[in-house]
Amino acid sequence: MSIFTKIIQGELPCYKIFEDDLTFSFLALDQINPGHTLIIPKKEVNHWFEVSEAEYLRVHQNALKIGQAIHQATKSQRVLTATVGFEVPHFHLHLIPAWSMADLDFKKAKRLPAEEMTRIQKEIIQFIK
Amino acid sequence: MSIFTKIIQGELPCYKIFEDDLTFSFLALDQINPGHTLIIPKKEVNHWFEVSEAEYLRVHQNALKIGQAIHQATKSQRVLTATVGFEVPHFHLHLIPAWSMADLDFKKAKRLPAEEMTRIQKEIIQFIK
Repeated sequence: MSIFTKIIQGELPCYKIFEDDLTFSFLALDQINPGHTLIIPKKEVNHWFEVSEAEYLRVHQNALKIGQAIHQATKSQRVLTATVGFEVPHFHLHLIPAWSMADLDFKKAKRLPAEEMTRIQKEIIQFIK
Repeated sequence: MSIFTKIIQGELPCYKIFEDDLTFSFLALDQINPGHTLIIPKKEVNHWFEVSEAEYLRVHQNALKIGQAIHQATKSQRVLTATVGFEVPHFHLHLIPAWSMADLDFKKAKRLPAEEMTRIQKEIIQFIK
């Protein structure tokens, strides 16, 4: 069972951003920039192109509204997307507020204090339509 | 007019992978790894979350089949996806065959000889269902 499945099932804590019947979204544990968010299908599938079309498209449908909310909450220049997956074998789409190409660097990701995570979580949620 | 609109209109050459009514796909001019492909909406829109839902979802629907084809053609361990957009203000989804996290590095992208581009193009196209 992936750590993301444990998060969905409530066995591990997270800063939840959004949930529907097929997908789940939460702040990345290690943040490249504050507001760095993941969207995942609830069903645990390793490689993004092996996810069912319905679940894959729902992830991206939600990315449109969550991406806009991150953009408004963080006032970032852009929001980057990435799917990598070498570390956790459960497809997760990264949404990363960014000011330059250099922000697409997972080595920059770090833990933030709980109060900052809670603040960012609230700010993003208020912009989700 | 973006360089990608010029490619769609045939004013600039490319190694085309796929085309339908809403989207266009071709080998990235500078390849991180051989097989690095872009998918774009034909309509020129800067930020991915400003693209219409129909066009955005079509890009990703096509990503599922083109991503699988890249995986089969290159025998890569994974296929990464990324949207950055600091350089060309016309939304483009990168599909990058990869063997490690280090392959998500645009500084590694380089021109390849025309005969190698043609060979990769043919190999990917034959796997598109």
